[in-house]
Amino acid sequence: MKQIALLGATGSIGVQTLDVIRLHPDEFNLHSMAFGRNVEKALPLIKEFNPKTVVVQDEATKDALSRLIDQPIYTGTEGLIEISVDDAVDVVVNAVMGSIGLPATLKAIEAKKTIAIANKETLVTAGHLVMSEAKRHGVELLPVDSEHSAIYQSLNGENKQDIHKLIITASGGSFRDQTREELVGVTVEDALNHPNWSMGAKITIDSASMMNKGLEVIEAHWLFDVPYDQIHVILHRESVIHSMVEFVDRSVMAQLGTPDMKVPIQYALTYPNRLDLEMTKQLDLEEIATLHFEKMDMVRFPCLRMAYEAGREGGSMTTVLNAANEEAVQLFLEGKISFLDIERKIERALEAHKRIHNPDLSTILSIDKETRNKVRFHLN
Amino acid sequence: MKQIALLGATGSIGVQTLDVIRLHPDEFNLHSMAFGRNVEKALPLIKEFNPKTVVVQDEATKDALSRLIDQPIYTGTEGLIEISVDDAVDVVVNAVMGSIGLPATLKAIEAKKTIAIANKETLVTAGHLVMSEAKRHGVELLPVDSEHSAIYQSLNGENKQDIHKLIITASGGSFRDQTREELVGVTVEDALNHPNWSMGAKITIDSASMMNKGLEVIEAHWLFDVPYDQIHVILHRESVIHSMVEFVDRSVMAQLGTPDMKVPIQYALTYPNRLDLEMTKQLDLEEIATLHFEKMDMVRFPCLRMAYEAGREGGSMTTVLNAANEEAVQLFLEGKISFLDIERKIERALEAHKRIHNPDLSTILSIDKETRNKVRFHLN
Repeated sequence: MKQIALLGATGSIGVQTLDVIRLHPDEFNLHSMAFGRNVEKALPLIKEFNPKTVVVQDEATKDALSRLIDQPIYTGTEGLIEISVDDAVDVVVNAVMGSIGLPATLKAIEAKKTIAIANKETLVTAGHLVMSEAKRHGVELLPVDSEHSAIYQSLNGENKQDIHKLIITASGGSFRDQTREELVGVTVEDALNHPNWSMGAKITIDSASMMNKGLEVIEAHWLFDVPYDQIHVILHRESVIHSMVEFVDRSVMAQLGTPDMKVPIQYALTYPNRLDLEMTKQLDLEEIATLHFEKMDMVRFPCLRMAYEAGREGGSMTTVLNAANEEAVQLFLEGKISFLDIERKIERALEAHKRIHNPDLSTILSIDKETRNKVRFHLN
Repeated sequence: MKQIALLGATGSIGVQTLDVIRLHPDEFNLHSMAFGRNVEKALPLIKEFNPKTVVVQDEATKDALSRLIDQPIYTGTEGLIEISVDDAVDVVVNAVMGSIGLPATLKAIEAKKTIAIANKETLVTAGHLVMSEAKRHGVELLPVDSEHSAIYQSLNGENKQDIHKLIITASGGSFRDQTREELVGVTVEDALNHPNWSMGAKITIDSASMMNKGLEVIEAHWLFDVPYDQIHVILHRESVIHSMVEFVDRSVMAQLGTPDMKVPIQYALTYPNRLDLEMTKQLDLEEIATLHFEKMDMVRFPCLRMAYEAGREGGSMTTVLNAANEEAVQLFLEGKISFLDIERKIERALEAHKRIHNPDLSTILSIDKETRNKVRFHLN
């Protein structure tokens, strides 16, 4: 029985992680869970799964919740760390949104937990720290993102030195068929309408801007230790091939499936084994009939270009990229800036930053904070 | 340095195996080689690779060759066995055509050699014997067929009990766009014009009749120990996805690549590792742009239906299927019967045979001989 600490329990990945736990009560137990402020959504989950400990974002939420449940309640980053290092926990599923997942990830690594990582911002903002710590403590980071899970599955049984190229597929997001001119007036509602996947708001906006793919490229660089020149993005509208690895012998391994995040979530929990997922729709290629592949257009999608550039420059640049993006997407969701302002804000933030080589955690956290502040209040 | 015994050196797989050996002189050495009667083609290969021993089909060929080379020359099945069990040999590449590869395969298994098996007829005609012997002696059979290599690669690092379905892709062969009516007058030349792969005559005709896919289904049944109901064939014109495995969690692993048999040949020689194959064209999905998948039509392709039926019936039925097909294809290549006569001859041979459960080697060899005789001289 694997004991699971779930960070981000009320988000899209969190809820689907609970679906997986629910499907296999003999395999998994929810030891503890963390969520932000959504008490209404969390309460029935707490009642159903009865975790030992609950973590919420702030004191106000704690006060509201403490009248409704008996479990001890912790708050904030300290709370996330508390459940991530608990002796009884086997796997930490980090599915919080944004770079707030970073300190808990580092502490969980130190405590030698297996980490299922759905929080790509952690690796984008501080990949060098996370991976060197993981290496030092012999900890495995299991990706939950469908693309990285596909690569991880394609690498199963293989030698990393035999990798020639990673090929990450992109559906193209909500605006794949719009010209840049047509993007000027798009609404939040338009952007939230993803063609293939049902996901949270932030990642859906990131998919529309193609920043999500950029963050995935950086995440892949760190997770699989592959240079940016060997990470290729290809437009694949159907999202059937979730990603691929080309090896030195020109053999390409790929993982395919219907768009159901429960598959990569469960794989991260069962690796190197698999378990039934009977309710997930089987891939029917006869029905799908055609798969399309197109070259990715870096002019059409400047966020992807900026992600590659920030990744190649390295150091603190990806911290800035990620923080600027998180804040700009938030501003867009709040209706304060337009969709195309997102990429402008990020570009300005990157231009305004002087790269710091090999930043430590406190430097990263302060650059993160400073960048958000700039994007919200100063840069236009 | 792996010492290789190559059975079928002048055939399509044999020549490409020598290409792979030539590319990696520090990794592989041709210890011995066998071919049929094509002295002209074999002689420069013998001069180049200087194997310790040579095997030919008959005494006449031996006499002709013995004046040209210094190596000891053996003949026939005894010769194939001789080099397959040699103490110095690490890997036996069985790329002979047809069921004559069977006795040497069984002896190589007994001698605990790693076997790269390109000779699918061996498994079709006597899968139960070969696999039970392989299991008994702890010997690994490494498939060379592109489809089975794709499945083997997809299974790397996986548990066999997690397999839900094998999905074998079929290009459709030379006649995929002809109606059954249009097949009445096709010539040998038409049938030899395969759209994607450059292969030997027998396998190209088998591809046109779809018997090749049927033999592959039976081969996959034995190699991967999967019931026929869980082996699915899908028409995929581009031959880019070489085959797939669906697991119990609905995840589908696939191997893709350009159509170059050197990739699966080399994989069988390097497994579980990989080596460079720089001259092989990289897969370019942006250039290919579209992949198509269609349901396989069992009425359009009765050979595939018969293969499934013979496989499910089991026992000696697949021996008959294979022998009848080999002989009928030979008759077609000799210009003695029409293309559609191939399937008629096979159907008649299957109807005329009374299944023997669990036949031993001598029974298999006598059924094989008897079936060929019937197909050539008696059945119409």
